Amino acid sequence: MSTKGQVITCKAAVAWEKEKPLTLEDVEVSPPKAGEVRIKVLATGVCHTDAYTLDGHDPEGIFPVILGHEGGGIVESVGEGVTSVKEATQGKGVMPDGTSRFICKGKQIYHFMGCSTFSQYTVVSEISVAKVNDSAPLESVCLLGCGLSTGYGAAVNTAKVEPGSTCAIFGLGAVGLAVAMGCRAQGAKRIIGIDLNSNKFELAQPFGCTEFVNPNDHKSPIQEVLVNMTDGGCDYTFECIGNVDVMRAALEACHKGWGESVIIGVAASGKEISTRPFQLVTGRVWKGTAFGGWKSRDSVPKLVEDYMSKKIMVDEFITFKKPLNEINNAFELMHQGKALRSVVLME
Amino acid sequence: MSTKGQVITCKAAVAWEKEKPLTLEDVEVSPPKAGEVRIKVLATGVCHTDAYTLDGHDPEGIFPVILGHEGGGIVESVGEGVTSVKEATQGKGVMPDGTSRFICKGKQIYHFMGCSTFSQYTVVSEISVAKVNDSAPLESVCLLGCGLSTGYGAAVNTAKVEPGSTCAIFGLGAVGLAVAMGCRAQGAKRIIGIDLNSNKFELAQPFGCTEFVNPNDHKSPIQEVLVNMTDGGCDYTFECIGNVDVMRAALEACHKGWGESVIIGVAASGKEISTRPFQLVTGRVWKGTAFGGWKSRDSVPKLVEDYMSKKIMVDEFITFKKPLNEINNAFELMHQGKALRSVVLME
Repeated sequence: MSTKGQVITCKAAVAWEKEKPLTLEDVEVSPPKAGEVRIKVLATGVCHTDAYTLDGHDPEGIFPVILGHEGGGIVESVGEGVTSVKEATQGKGVMPDGTSRFICKGKQIYHFMGCSTFSQYTVVSEISVAKVNDSAPLESVCLLGCGLSTGYGAAVNTAKVEPGSTCAIFGLGAVGLAVAMGCRAQGAKRIIGIDLNSNKFELAQPFGCTEFVNPNDHKSPIQEVLVNMTDGGCDYTFECIGNVDVMRAALEACHKGWGESVIIGVAASGKEISTRPFQLVTGRVWKGTAFGGWKSRDSVPKLVEDYMSKKIMVDEFITFKKPLNEINNAFELMHQGKALRSVVLME
Repeated sequence: MSTKGQVITCKAAVAWEKEKPLTLEDVEVSPPKAGEVRIKVLATGVCHTDAYTLDGHDPEGIFPVILGHEGGGIVESVGEGVTSVKEATQGKGVMPDGTSRFICKGKQIYHFMGCSTFSQYTVVSEISVAKVNDSAPLESVCLLGCGLSTGYGAAVNTAKVEPGSTCAIFGLGAVGLAVAMGCRAQGAKRIIGIDLNSNKFELAQPFGCTEFVNPNDHKSPIQEVLVNMTDGGCDYTFECIGNVDVMRAALEACHKGWGESVIIGVAASGKEISTRPFQLVTGRVWKGTAFGGWKSRDSVPKLVEDYMSKKIMVDEFITFKKPLNEINNAFELMHQGKALRSVVLME
């Protein structure tokens, strides 16, 4: 029996309030309205940005909400027309018409980043859906929806790393390792990984890191260590942590005259970056990246093809695969630094 | 009689200590050593950077010193060889061999920025000299030694302003107007000048400014005013003041996704720029420029040719021409905002 036009009741991991574990609930998912798409989510990544909101760090976070934004799924049904989709309402927890498609225990549940992939069914705007190769394994390529693409694109699109260059990556989580993969693809000669956890160093080599520095092993500030290691500084540096002090160090580790530093990490609300303007006047460039400079609808299908042709790695980023009822454990493993990425299988 | 190999006694404006007027003195200028050039200075600009040091804002400023770094002159004599010039000692007040070529009242006087153009004769390293068209009027093209080239190059080389773009320039002194000239040369559509002194607005139009904003005329922060004026923000902004709060405003006045802000002004010692990293993560770029991205020996001769062929304006920046004994008045006029540039004629 077709479910088109019907309310679907399914399981979702609901965040009722901040700083509390997610709870598995039966949620009612409304049919898609005009310009919307209802998706059966098969797999979803668990990203630091989900934790950032759940832990209450995002001042614009609203609850109750269904989190999740690295989703892979199949279209269950579509709403009428497509031209009505205009205003972007992703940041407001609702669909473009100002309402939610989720109800749980009689209460409206907010959407998250236009995705809410922590539900077996979700409704998203047509503009939020990227159609990918039918034969791509969704439990892998769902990760191309955020972190991996962001890190890889930061090196490839935002910094446009040049062959032979020296790069430094601050923070060797999934995003940082995706940066390393991008630097290697661009032909970087030295790719220096930096992390406080020395266990990450062996892990990082298959992704392209050629050298490692643990700031705790040095008395000098990390930017000085890097400047000394690299005959004056790095050509490109990447901050993949979200710490404003590290962002400054990353900039100051760049070579004067041409070094570029890219901010990828999301800093806590209210935190500010700072440096002496002399750092920029002497030729360094400070940039940031959102989704690695990719345009999601056009680029994600291409990245999926790059994965299918083994040009980029994805499976290597998956530390755990978990059923939906262990989603809170996926958050714990991430917080403990034990998982690059956990993929939650929704069925 | 040739003066080659002889000590030359000539007039120079000596800065004996910070925060005191320059005094005209007879100074003894040693012959150039190997790799050095002694120059008869015919004209010199007076730049804010000279005042920055004289007023004691530069923590690395050393006294007594002969200031001046926008000089035009003719070679009086050259030292042996050229290959010995290696270490850059411009920031240390001495020639590459660690000594000074100036003596006044028996006391060694320091060099300034490798130039010391406030003396009728000066000795500089060969690498500090740009040979320009013999027929160029030195009392004009001396200004291409610093501020004008810096502002013009910031638009042309550092930002690489694109045709049809919207630019904003904070501070309409000589550097800011040179930025406007560069933006116009690149085909910018809107060039918005910003200054607290509304008298500067009429002055700025011949250099390319199409619109003006005085922040004092608005209740909202200037970045908000500009974002509203420009449908989301400027494509390029330039800070030509040296105020870290204005540097922040200039960045935040950029359009998200692609806007670039270039810092040109020199901030007071110890001051830091800051912003929310979100400003960069959403696609803005923060850069700086030193000498507008030009390489002095190669580029200044070309800029002189651009002046000779009327591609760039120089004479229009000269508000006053002064004899050497009125050099302190040139500083006063600059501080009062009454002179874009004063050129001091050294003979």
